Amino acid sequence: MSDKQSAMTDYLQSFIAGLINSGVQKAVISPGSRSTPLALLLHRNEKIQTYIEVDERSAGFFALGLSKVSQQPVVLLCTSGTAAANYYPAICEAKASYVPLVVLTTDRPHELRQVGAPQAMDQLQLFQQQVKLFVEMALPENTPQLLDYAYWQGIKTGNTAQQTPKGPVHLNFPLREPLLPKQSEVSLPSRLTEIISGENQLTDQQVKEIVTSWHGKRGVLIVGGEHQPEEATSFVQLAEKLQWPIIGDPLDNLTAETDSLLVMNHIDLFIDKVLEKATPEIVVRFGKLPLSKNLMLWLQQLDPKETRTYFIDETGEWLDQLKQGQIIIQAEEKQLVKQLINFAPKHLPAKWSEDWINWQQAVEMTLSEITELASLNEISASRVLHQKMAKNGQLFISNSNAIRFIDRYADKVNAGYRVYGNRGINGIDGIVSTALGMCAVQPEVQNVLLIGDLALYHDMNGLLLAKRYHFPLTIVLLNNNGGGIFSFLSQRQLDEEEFELLFGTPIDLDFSQVAELYGAAYAKVESLEQLASRLEITQKQPQFQIIEVVGNRQENVILQEKVQASITKKLRG
Amino acid sequence: MSDKQSAMTDYLQSFIAGLINSGVQKAVISPGSRSTPLALLLHRNEKIQTYIEVDERSAGFFALGLSKVSQQPVVLLCTSGTAAANYYPAICEAKASYVPLVVLTTDRPHELRQVGAPQAMDQLQLFQQQVKLFVEMALPENTPQLLDYAYWQGIKTGNTAQQTPKGPVHLNFPLREPLLPKQSEVSLPSRLTEIISGENQLTDQQVKEIVTSWHGKRGVLIVGGEHQPEEATSFVQLAEKLQWPIIGDPLDNLTAETDSLLVMNHIDLFIDKVLEKATPEIVVRFGKLPLSKNLMLWLQQLDPKETRTYFIDETGEWLDQLKQGQIIIQAEEKQLVKQLINFAPKHLPAKWSEDWINWQQAVEMTLSEITELASLNEISASRVLHQKMAKNGQLFISNSNAIRFIDRYADKVNAGYRVYGNRGINGIDGIVSTALGMCAVQPEVQNVLLIGDLALYHDMNGLLLAKRYHFPLTIVLLNNNGGGIFSFLSQRQLDEEEFELLFGTPIDLDFSQVAELYGAAYAKVESLEQLASRLEITQKQPQFQIIEVVGNRQENVILQEKVQASITKKLRG
Repeated sequence: MSDKQSAMTDYLQSFIAGLINSGVQKAVISPGSRSTPLALLLHRNEKIQTYIEVDERSAGFFALGLSKVSQQPVVLLCTSGTAAANYYPAICEAKASYVPLVVLTTDRPHELRQVGAPQAMDQLQLFQQQVKLFVEMALPENTPQLLDYAYWQGIKTGNTAQQTPKGPVHLNFPLREPLLPKQSEVSLPSRLTEIISGENQLTDQQVKEIVTSWHGKRGVLIVGGEHQPEEATSFVQLAEKLQWPIIGDPLDNLTAETDSLLVMNHIDLFIDKVLEKATPEIVVRFGKLPLSKNLMLWLQQLDPKETRTYFIDETGEWLDQLKQGQIIIQAEEKQLVKQLINFAPKHLPAKWSEDWINWQQAVEMTLSEITELASLNEISASRVLHQKMAKNGQLFISNSNAIRFIDRYADKVNAGYRVYGNRGINGIDGIVSTALGMCAVQPEVQNVLLIGDLALYHDMNGLLLAKRYHFPLTIVLLNNNGGGIFSFLSQRQLDEEEFELLFGTPIDLDFSQVAELYGAAYAKVESLEQLASRLEITQKQPQFQIIEVVGNRQENVILQEKVQASITKKLRG
Repeated sequence: MSDKQSAMTDYLQSFIAGLINSGVQKAVISPGSRSTPLALLLHRNEKIQTYIEVDERSAGFFALGLSKVSQQPVVLLCTSGTAAANYYPAICEAKASYVPLVVLTTDRPHELRQVGAPQAMDQLQLFQQQVKLFVEMALPENTPQLLDYAYWQGIKTGNTAQQTPKGPVHLNFPLREPLLPKQSEVSLPSRLTEIISGENQLTDQQVKEIVTSWHGKRGVLIVGGEHQPEEATSFVQLAEKLQWPIIGDPLDNLTAETDSLLVMNHIDLFIDKVLEKATPEIVVRFGKLPLSKNLMLWLQQLDPKETRTYFIDETGEWLDQLKQGQIIIQAEEKQLVKQLINFAPKHLPAKWSEDWINWQQAVEMTLSEITELASLNEISASRVLHQKMAKNGQLFISNSNAIRFIDRYADKVNAGYRVYGNRGINGIDGIVSTALGMCAVQPEVQNVLLIGDLALYHDMNGLLLAKRYHFPLTIVLLNNNGGGIFSFLSQRQLDEEEFELLFGTPIDLDFSQVAELYGAAYAKVESLEQLASRLEITQKQPQFQIIEVVGNRQENVILQEKVQASITKKLRG
């Protein structure tokens, strides 16, 4: 056993000990040669749960899902070369959606760089501004100084990933052959570094002044971004105390643990019909805008002389897309909402909030009257899926049409389940793997993914994770054979041939064969009842399966136009 | 029709005109919204052939393949967000293997950046040091100045991609809505910019001095990197004139148009057995090292006092992995080789070259005597594939085991076909799509991909291109259910459970189902004869098909050890 091997082993063990003390418990490993020592040492460590995935793009998104649900930093490990570049899409998403990842790439040592050695490329700063921190690690040594250094980098980078704004960090490890670690018998001294972080908060006095100025005013709360149910609940409590409507989108989980009437669903379907009646005096926005485009257009046309807008900027990144915030509050949301609830004088129900409640209920009634929504199509399937989620279930919603259908059409029934999505940059590139990451953390509950055919195709490789680890994910596939969202956008004006070729992009895949390839159960449902009964079963018997709903891009548009017309009639008529 | 739309249309048309004048003829487009105007204008342009692929990772590697074979810069176009990050693996490979790509990403305009707008991320310098040039384009205007600017950027970046060292360039286009271009009736003035580039060459006098100093010496030529057949041929002509052995690897195409005995095959199998007999006085290395690890070890042990090493550094990047070059020549290879042939005095055959020829022939004889190579296994299948390539055929060889089998075992029979691979960074992430890019340029000839199961899985999505465009690629799949190369590396010392989990990584996919999913013909061959006859058919009837050879990782190692022992006996005995 060479001394080099001992040095490398001790050095990497120190690093891993630091990672663990920062809170790391999970690692996703893609096989490779240069990464061998880290792969083996992570895998042999009892405190780390490891997963193996050959395709680094899928591995990256799977780690993203693990991290979203477990709320812990997750390690990614791969070998040198283009392998690392495959992590890039998941890293960009993690940066934008504040998900802590610790990305470990392994590299040729310095003497083999920029000399044409095989599988070597410049990995320094590989992920540019898309990571919070990049560290080029020293070559392994086991002097006390270097063991301290390695431990320190482990705990520091694991912690950096978790600090607000959370996000990915990248460490590049130059490693020399021999790459097999020594079976280390030495147990490292258990380091006692402890991390105590404070919060970024306003004084009670500041909050009192703000909330007092809101008293008796017509206000609206708008919540963007992803939220854990307990955070979401406190937003709703604030709305109740203020008696203001509260608007979000599916990822906010506002309805997860409440049935408050003040939570507005269907906002995209009705806000444009009540423009003249819905002029608030106060708008309080938390984070990014929710999904609805009509909501954005409504906000944009508000007159700043009539409406005062507060923008809560938790991350200090000024992510106010509308540049509308007149008062910008930089403080941690969770703490601020608690303080606001504490100091807000109790408002009584007033015509303002009753109007909003009535508008929303009118929409719900309209939706229940439209006959097409009682037969099977992509929109009605999304409604039924929402109804058939178990109270403790987890739903991952793909981007593009899937999340818009849920946002516009899901009624406020039977909430309680937890919703996830990739809304940092809204890609369709890693949805399957991220959903499987979600499923891996709580495989015992109902886990469902709602996804279109293009997004499923884009990350089909991710299905190998479900096959290998028996993750019981139910995939509800809205298959309209192509890019359904473009039928709702201006591109639909193009002539059909050009539209189909460049935007419709039918892929003509038989998804029963995809299911067979990856060992998933498969069913093509023919009615809403069939879909409902299959989903009910998954509440108690989770299973890896694809439930296909055959849709039609044109029909979706026609149905949506019909819905809009009925709502206009009801709210304006 | 808004004025903004006219301005955008004219601006982008100018840019495209510049691209075309730089030599661009092909574009690979991934659907998206922000990229709509460029997608439509490229597609509507009669001088540009467009391909559509939903998965940007596959699209990137497909463009790489198109560019490798057509020797033209190829455009990649996608929408904003993580879509662009999916190009990263192909871009890294293109940078390292000198393939010209023009990557166009579309972006939110400045007022929607860093404000939390959907599908927006920082795309500036997105690909870092992995592209030759990054340009953040101006927002579209149609003043004469800006039309000139757009044209100029088109011709400049298209040209930059093609200049030595060739490689990828990246342009980011901020675009505002409305995104539909105006049907432009105006034909742009045909610009007359013409590009005349000089070459980086030595004077005849310099070359004469060099080549004269080689006279009567024992020399070896070593050629790395990818070469077109005409370049390869001139390397062999130089070897013939000098009567020196010439060593490369399959991607050099040295045997494509010659049957010179001086071209050494099987180098990895015998160079370590003739150490004491093979001490050259001159080593002339062109570019990167060839594939063989034993060749590298042989070069490393040469004594610089006995052996003088020339390193031809065409790109000026100092990519001399062994840092062994005593004389570094920075000049364009093609021109230099011509000059060397011109001025080299004719050498006569000598014991030196005869020895090398004899060693190689001894190996060929040994291989023909080993009975296992007459029955079906991964190694013998690679040999037969080489024999059954049509003279005008194209073979793409995957990384990992596939290229090593061809390098070690392919005899010098029936050469003449053209070999491609991704040896810039040696990834297994985009092999299928790159091979399809190769096939797309010359679909009428025999097109074959030799690939293992892990690499095929990694880029399975690429198969959709073959389905959509009916590319008649024959895929010879060496399926040993996992990472076969690790059985040849030190990792095989690990206990079996750990080895299989972290390195063997069986994926257990039934590739007949993969074939069915993508509409490929499929056959599992049971004998070498079956394989040979199927390959013979493809010489005349190209077809999209998967021919599966079931292999065994352990058997490969045992057979290789047997071969090595026989060769040792023959050469040393």
